[in-house]
Amino acid sequence: MLLRLRASLTESDRELILRFCKDLGYSPRFLGSAREILELEGQGRPEDRSRLEDHTCVREILDAGGSRELTARGPGEADRVVRVGEARFGGGWVSLVAGPCAVENAARLFEIARGVAASGAAILRGGAYKPRTSPYSFRGLGREGLELLADARAETGLPIVTEVLDPRDVAEIHELADMFQIGSRSMSNAALLTEVGRTQKPVLLKRGMAATVREFLLAAEYVLSAGNPNVVLCERGIRGFDKITRNVLDVGAIAHLKMHTHLPVVADPSHAAGRRDLVLPLARAGIAAGADGLLIEVHPAPAEVRSDGAQALSLDDFDRLARDVHSLVQLDGRRLAGIRGEEQQAADPGLLVRHADPRLPKELTA
Amino acid sequence: MLLRLRASLTESDRELILRFCKDLGYSPRFLGSAREILELEGQGRPEDRSRLEDHTCVREILDAGGSRELTARGPGEADRVVRVGEARFGGGWVSLVAGPCAVENAARLFEIARGVAASGAAILRGGAYKPRTSPYSFRGLGREGLELLADARAETGLPIVTEVLDPRDVAEIHELADMFQIGSRSMSNAALLTEVGRTQKPVLLKRGMAATVREFLLAAEYVLSAGNPNVVLCERGIRGFDKITRNVLDVGAIAHLKMHTHLPVVADPSHAAGRRDLVLPLARAGIAAGADGLLIEVHPAPAEVRSDGAQALSLDDFDRLARDVHSLVQLDGRRLAGIRGEEQQAADPGLLVRHADPRLPKELTA
Amino acid sequence: MLLRLRASLTESDRELILRFCKDLGYSPRFLGSAREILELEGQGRPEDRSRLEDHTCVREILDAGGSRELTARGPGEADRVVRVGEARFGGGWVSLVAGPCAVENAARLFEIARGVAASGAAILRGGAYKPRTSPYSFRGLGREGLELLADARAETGLPIVTEVLDPRDVAEIHELADMFQIGSRSMSNAALLTEVGRTQKPVLLKRGMAATVREFLLAAEYVLSAGNPNVVLCERGIRGFDKITRNVLDVGAIAHLKMHTHLPVVADPSHAAGRRDLVLPLARAGIAAGADGLLIEVHPAPAEVRSDGAQALSLDDFDRLARDVHSLVQLDGRRLAGIRGEEQQAADPGLLVRHADPRLPKELTA
Amino acid sequence: MLLRLRASLTESDRELILRFCKDLGYSPRFLGSAREILELEGQGRPEDRSRLEDHTCVREILDAGGSRELTARGPGEADRVVRVGEARFGGGWVSLVAGPCAVENAARLFEIARGVAASGAAILRGGAYKPRTSPYSFRGLGREGLELLADARAETGLPIVTEVLDPRDVAEIHELADMFQIGSRSMSNAALLTEVGRTQKPVLLKRGMAATVREFLLAAEYVLSAGNPNVVLCERGIRGFDKITRNVLDVGAIAHLKMHTHLPVVADPSHAAGRRDLVLPLARAGIAAGADGLLIEVHPAPAEVRSDGAQALSLDDFDRLARDVHSLVQLDGRRLAGIRGEEQQAADPGLLVRHADPRLPKELTA
Repeated sequence: MLLRLRASLTESDRELILRFCKDLGYSPRFLGSAREILELEGQGRPEDRSRLEDHTCVREILDAGGSRELTARGPGEADRVVRVGEARFGGGWVSLVAGPCAVENAARLFEIARGVAASGAAILRGGAYKPRTSPYSFRGLGREGLELLADARAETGLPIVTEVLDPRDVAEIHELADMFQIGSRSMSNAALLTEVGRTQKPVLLKRGMAATVREFLLAAEYVLSAGNPNVVLCERGIRGFDKITRNVLDVGAIAHLKMHTHLPVVADPSHAAGRRDLVLPLARAGIAAGADGLLIEVHPAPAEVRSDGAQALSLDDFDRLARDVHSLVQLDGRRLAGIRGEEQQAADPGLLVRHADPRLPKELTA
Repeated sequence: MLLRLRASLTESDRELILRFCKDLGYSPRFLGSAREILELEGQGRPEDRSRLEDHTCVREILDAGGSRELTARGPGEADRVVRVGEARFGGGWVSLVAGPCAVENAARLFEIARGVAASGAAILRGGAYKPRTSPYSFRGLGREGLELLADARAETGLPIVTEVLDPRDVAEIHELADMFQIGSRSMSNAALLTEVGRTQKPVLLKRGMAATVREFLLAAEYVLSAGNPNVVLCERGIRGFDKITRNVLDVGAIAHLKMHTHLPVVADPSHAAGRRDLVLPLARAGIAAGADGLLIEVHPAPAEVRSDGAQALSLDDFDRLARDVHSLVQLDGRRLAGIRGEEQQAADPGLLVRHADPRLPKELTA
Repeated sequence: MLLRLRASLTESDRELILRFCKDLGYSPRFLGSAREILELEGQGRPEDRSRLEDHTCVREILDAGGSRELTARGPGEADRVVRVGEARFGGGWVSLVAGPCAVENAARLFEIARGVAASGAAILRGGAYKPRTSPYSFRGLGREGLELLADARAETGLPIVTEVLDPRDVAEIHELADMFQIGSRSMSNAALLTEVGRTQKPVLLKRGMAATVREFLLAAEYVLSAGNPNVVLCERGIRGFDKITRNVLDVGAIAHLKMHTHLPVVADPSHAAGRRDLVLPLARAGIAAGADGLLIEVHPAPAEVRSDGAQALSLDDFDRLARDVHSLVQLDGRRLAGIRGEEQQAADPGLLVRHADPRLPKELTA
Repeated sequence: MLLRLRASLTESDRELILRFCKDLGYSPRFLGSAREILELEGQGRPEDRSRLEDHTCVREILDAGGSRELTARGPGEADRVVRVGEARFGGGWVSLVAGPCAVENAARLFEIARGVAASGAAILRGGAYKPRTSPYSFRGLGREGLELLADARAETGLPIVTEVLDPRDVAEIHELADMFQIGSRSMSNAALLTEVGRTQKPVLLKRGMAATVREFLLAAEYVLSAGNPNVVLCERGIRGFDKITRNVLDVGAIAHLKMHTHLPVVADPSHAAGRRDLVLPLARAGIAAGADGLLIEVHPAPAEVRSDGAQALSLDDFDRLARDVHSLVQLDGRRLAGIRGEEQQAADPGLLVRHADPRLPKELTA
């Protein structure tokens, strides 16, 4: 490991940091005439990088060396494939997650669930507990919404994912849903991350709206270090200065994450765009950048939606998107989970063997 | 109220939105030949703006008219003065909140508490439950830290503020602290905001690192609408593109908030700067922009601090800051709570009468 | 047209703005009880929107109505196809622009030019006058670089594009190059935009690093309004807060631009990434979002490059990228200009007839 | 100097960079077992940092050591005081620069010039060549505007500053104005920076709207390295995500710049706010953060202004601002140039001797 120390340390500060490194089990050695670089030899643990970064005498970690966090992809390490029922993310598998922003009633939900299943979605999404900017907005049907989702699963066979907002709700959602969603507003909610980390149920973790990639990975690290390795990362757009889109879909972060973590990465073009007409091109861009899946808001009567109607696709538009995405996925030698993928597999049983890795060699890169 | 509707509404969409407005008690009327502007006449409630904004047919609220949220400053409405023991925020009162990032041990905490009290701090801050980006970082002493804070209060007479991270901890912190702190990472944690809103204990609410001012005010609205009017807003820097400072202190937001809400507004130059040498100029800038107080991290031996040592001021530096800020506050005809302010009042009993309002007339502004 | 006026206008302000609108040839009419909305009837000219926006009494243009700027895509208006030699952008044509960041010497340039031509590039790029952040950086070979580019064109048949930085250089570059490039740093350089606008030579205009889409289009408007309709817009990443990539490729802007302007739009994944290993996924994302071409930095010996070597692809990597992009382009029913596209056309002469429009219907969107 | 090299360099890459460093006159030495840190011993020149940063094998400069650029403040180096007529910036001197956004006509300009002079402005500002986002906006009176400014100078004795947009206009503006203004849009216009750098006339250089502090200083370096040391840096707000203000005034950058460059730094609260009612608090914040002056837009009839009227102060508001700022300046032991400062000096001749340095010691900071 290679550390850069702060300028102007005193000799007693240097003693402090040396002792600290030795206590972590390393052999430290100052480099250079100003002794501002510290090289550590020894075996690293996942927690060492954070502990050293926190030390007041340390300005930055130049090279984390062998101290690899749990989310990090080791040299040559394969994708972790996260399974949710028949859905799969990573390792050449792509899954579409689709459904309404919020669960409203049984009839509507069933209509959407049947529609998206028929078009190739592998998971049904729907909010029962909704995070809202305003206390006066519709905050979801709660328990009733969860039960409607479970009914829709029974009806269609699709596993369900729904957002959890409060650590006190984890047990209830664990019982009824197949995957937890942690929203952008909750990415830094350590109590919540720890609670879902204590289960083995898959977690769809969204990036905070101004979180760096490292902060995003450390949020996932909360879940993994609590014992749950089944995390799917979701890039949903970062806050930008222009108002043409609600957020800026950070396709570079998708591509970077695919290299630096073994966890699957999906894109949420609906929240990134905030407007229906850009969902398709952003979905295509996310898949082309390497995403292992998509989250898509779908609603047959957007004008009646109680939240985020402007970005919901109709069932027909979703069908078009699923077909389009399927073509892109096939072009990469990847496969869609769900019925479209089954048809593809039937036609070509050797499919996943040829999965192309979209990564170039990395010499000379930062 | 004046609404701008989305383009391309159908006639049945227009029927929907008309009915919705009537159900809220308004008389709606389309304006203009394209009928994309909707004027509502009638008495507004605080929740109407959010409900209308949520409607899929509504593109934006051009003028909220009489639908004033609870955090909004009404025409001619005076500042709400929030009191925490002898500390006061707003209405010409300025309070300094100072202390260590995290509580470490009794000796250190008492040394800091006595020091900052002597220099003019009105509230002692200290973290017992620490929000951390990494699961491997020091997360505070918990209950033990709270008890040490209570001891320091007994010793110095300073009221104490500490961060609450989890709705399950609200009762315990309510029992031991004088003011809740809601950190940046929790600004959108509705469950937590609602829990502290059910008490009457003052809440120091920090702006999320990429929250708009409206989102910030709606977070405060969660607390107010749950029944607790004692909120102090804290601008602590927004995320920027340059790494010279950890965040960008948004002095324009401080000045804007002072006009548009009756709640007090304070600045946190320590977290904005992320480096000790910029804390004083940012503190001065915050006060000059109209802030009703400051949050300052103080530690006598920064190299030993377990989190954020690089931004902590020494006790001497804090004393210098307090003197400097006191001069600025006096220049405005305002008054520091705490011992410096008492000396000032003794010398000039008519003090607060002359409190200058830093606002210019607002004609022609956006 | 629909204008929103500033609050608190006086009666004489209202007279001013009414007169102003009438002088522009409109019939203005106040809407609503507060008379803050102004509806204008009449025929609009391209310049009216800007002129009204500039008026102090006007807060914003809610709907520009018939006042369409020259860059705007009219209802049903087809793509403008910009041709540079055999290269074509727009209307189902995709062109790859490739070459070194800066021209260094004849041997190197010829090697690159032959290589990228063979892989399917349709235009050779190379900097002779380089914009640099520091006055001490290599600023290009100037005139000598232009002549080397012209030689490389003679050798390979590829047309050449090179950056112009100074209005005093426009004549010289006009004489030697086939397309002007206006870089990010010059997007707001009105003198330069006007000079290239006075020619008919195609202009590759890059978005400023924090320019809104509207500001970007108004920069193009400078060129069009000066008489030159041959502008290709280039999205090259906007400044973000995370340092994993140099910039954030704004794929939403690409998709939005494809809808709202008839001008072609290309992506520059090399500058967006700032690192070689992300160029391919970002190139794919740009094309998937609808871009009509790509700018790619290529160099056979990146370690020797005098600027931006870390993002240059080798000739082999570029060949792989060109093949990958060709597949994506074919999937959309589009066609690459250059030799790959010729092979594609030979195999399928009906090609461009089936060009799929990636746009969904836009009802209910912002 | 301490360099961090890119990972995965080959041995021949290492030879390349060693030779490069030796050619610059340094003795280089690899540090650490991975040989990714390079320490250079020897005398540095201002250009070395940029040249090394540009090298493809170099990832970043960890410590520039003795290679100090011309804009850098050396250890213990005093402020450079830039004089423009009787106006002075830096070294305890604060100057107010005030006037209309654009020059419109003689009567208006004279009214403003007389008014701001009487209130304490030390320089008259006014645009003759205006940079505009849209080609259809009013672009200033050009030469006629310059002559009106010169007449206003003759009338009031105030020196004049006006923007230069095009290198071809430098000679004309040099002849008529006392100070060049380089606007935000032109901060990266190297041709323009070089032209004004060839004169000795003071330059007011505005920060680009998303420029880092280092990019800003390198823009100033263009002027200094061309031979002109008389640069005043202007922080005018950076682009942010919230629309409550046009830009975010970066007071941290002002404080940072005061430490790291010897050049004076001023603030432009008018452009940062974009609205009149926030100009005063932002002006106060800028001065409190250490700014050596302010740029303020002033106009007696804002509704008639042809650009940026919404942010112009009336003459009365400017007078109030000047009085307020004067109090803050006095509190620091600093002095306003112009008539207010003369009154202050008359009352206290020892004034500038006591100028307090707002900087804290910098141990342990980044």
